[in-house]
Amino acid sequence: MNFVPFVKTRTRGKVNVSSVTLAHGGGGKAMKDLIDDVFLTAFGEHACEPLEDQARFDLAVFAAHGDRLAFTTDSFVVDPLFFPGGDIGKLAVCGTVNDLAVGGAVPMYLSCAVIIEEGVQIDLLRQVALSMARTASQAGVQIVTGDTKVVPRGACDKIFITTTGVGAIPASLALGVDKARAGDAVLVNGLLGDHGAAILCARGDMALETPIASDCACLHELIGAILAAAPGTRFIRDATRGGVATVLNEIADGSGVSIEIEEGMTPIREEVKAFCEVLGLDPLYLANEGKIVVIVPPDQAEAALAAMRRDPLGLDAARIGRITSDQDSRVMMRTSFGGHRMVDMLVGEQLPRIC
Amino acid sequence: MNFVPFVKTRTRGKVNVSSVTLAHGGGGKAMKDLIDDVFLTAFGEHACEPLEDQARFDLAVFAAHGDRLAFTTDSFVVDPLFFPGGDIGKLAVCGTVNDLAVGGAVPMYLSCAVIIEEGVQIDLLRQVALSMARTASQAGVQIVTGDTKVVPRGACDKIFITTTGVGAIPASLALGVDKARAGDAVLVNGLLGDHGAAILCARGDMALETPIASDCACLHELIGAILAAAPGTRFIRDATRGGVATVLNEIADGSGVSIEIEEGMTPIREEVKAFCEVLGLDPLYLANEGKIVVIVPPDQAEAALAAMRRDPLGLDAARIGRITSDQDSRVMMRTSFGGHRMVDMLVGEQLPRIC
Repeated sequence: MNFVPFVKTRTRGKVNVSSVTLAHGGGGKAMKDLIDDVFLTAFGEHACEPLEDQARFDLAVFAAHGDRLAFTTDSFVVDPLFFPGGDIGKLAVCGTVNDLAVGGAVPMYLSCAVIIEEGVQIDLLRQVALSMARTASQAGVQIVTGDTKVVPRGACDKIFITTTGVGAIPASLALGVDKARAGDAVLVNGLLGDHGAAILCARGDMALETPIASDCACLHELIGAILAAAPGTRFIRDATRGGVATVLNEIADGSGVSIEIEEGMTPIREEVKAFCEVLGLDPLYLANEGKIVVIVPPDQAEAALAAMRRDPLGLDAARIGRITSDQDSRVMMRTSFGGHRMVDMLVGEQLPRIC
Repeated sequence: MNFVPFVKTRTRGKVNVSSVTLAHGGGGKAMKDLIDDVFLTAFGEHACEPLEDQARFDLAVFAAHGDRLAFTTDSFVVDPLFFPGGDIGKLAVCGTVNDLAVGGAVPMYLSCAVIIEEGVQIDLLRQVALSMARTASQAGVQIVTGDTKVVPRGACDKIFITTTGVGAIPASLALGVDKARAGDAVLVNGLLGDHGAAILCARGDMALETPIASDCACLHELIGAILAAAPGTRFIRDATRGGVATVLNEIADGSGVSIEIEEGMTPIREEVKAFCEVLGLDPLYLANEGKIVVIVPPDQAEAALAAMRRDPLGLDAARIGRITSDQDSRVMMRTSFGGHRMVDMLVGEQLPRIC
């Protein structure tokens, strides 16, 4: 069910109850009212044809930005739904915008499928929809089609959102996880681990004096600036689930290279460090929702760093290491004490439901 | 997370436990193993670039089929997961293929985001993935990117799947819910209500001697045949949640027309009729997952019907009514007794979680 039915020919429906019932998932009038009142009101009437079950775009719209289509999807099941620095709606938009942007794509259109638990307050749903709309608007993307399902009380945990994004990749770009080479610099755009720490705190398991805020943000403009300043950029990936350690291992595997990072160069907030020490966590494995790992040739590293630091989302950008060799697929960290330790792929679970 | 990472450079991961744990959603090695072993094994290595978080396609691939991109999404939360005639995996592929096809698009690529409850058996997940793969392969579409999330026991009901599809719309086509005109014929491709009845039966609420099978099927070839035989076709929609009654009301609203259908012409299986009588349900509101409503100009109705009947998915195709006037936006049924009754939009809930 497209989010844009009935815009032109009908009066918009209104939800006249305070919480979601199974009728809101039944396909009839109650469902149209929910879509009209909550989602259409938030998302507005968009570029695609109204009254249809699918959004439609001239291929020329994409061709204006590039020669390839990028296509990516992500489900968001974060608990709690609202946390310092963001909420599930903001996360669902930023996450998919970033998954498009890290491949060099211009993020353009999103779909949004929401699974709602019976009994969820309509006002809560409205807040989430408005947060999605605000985030999309700031990012310059449109939410153009969607779906709502309602499941009985206990069959899901309040709200799950799946966003899927399409965008266009400029003809000149060829980023790839297989493109890192010995000598390349490893950069990040700022302080690591804030999102994972924020979610754990927000769950109320800890009582911190100053709560840590999630870094949840759309990074496509920052990425655009990096690619303009450092056109030789090899690869960019957002360090979400599994953290920076996981991304570095993916690059080591994908390019068949070894990577060395320096503990002393890795930007981590003092509160997050302290928090990790108390819980026995490694901040390198904490999720981020506004941080990317960037691999650039050594002679473009300063230009990329400077471009990042000109963006509010890259003020604490840092060079954290380099590709040391074209073999072995190993990630090492030089510790502050001068020793070395392996930074392996996360084996078990570190933090569930952080995105 | 794309379903195609690590294909080229790593040995495929293996899941060595029998049920899903939270670690399988953590972003680390356990998650890669799950994706490798269950999803990649089922879906295979596809056209898109390996090792990336997004699928990428030359725009030319779409341009070869049309001048517009179609984009649609749907979540599937059906209970039970397996039922006569299908399962959640088949449903998730057919549903999105059909949402593309009803707009005239050639279905091409799907994304697949799976939310899994901790404790779900790996074998069950494997069955669902294989069913998706088989259905996609039969339909000629590729599942090219995806995401997996794991939520704690009790936070979702086993498995939810969100599929999003992209396809190309041929330049000549301009179907629209606003295009029905007085005199047009209203066609369906076969027996109505099977899916809704099948799900209710499969839930074990009834003990029928012969269980009713879902009509779940991909309809793009049938739709292609209709459009070739009846190029003047105004509009096609699949009659899923809310049934044929809801689709007819959407057309009445969208085109501002009145529709009359004939009870005696509406093809419904005897078992479904009996089932509905016992439960006090109206089969016109029962969900279908392999049935479409087709609006065609009167002089192309026979050609469209003949085209449908040549397809195994349209053997019981029927003309069920016509557009009676260009005003009033009302749907009426002429009953078998010669009277008339309103066929309104479903107001409350008829059947939850049928798709």
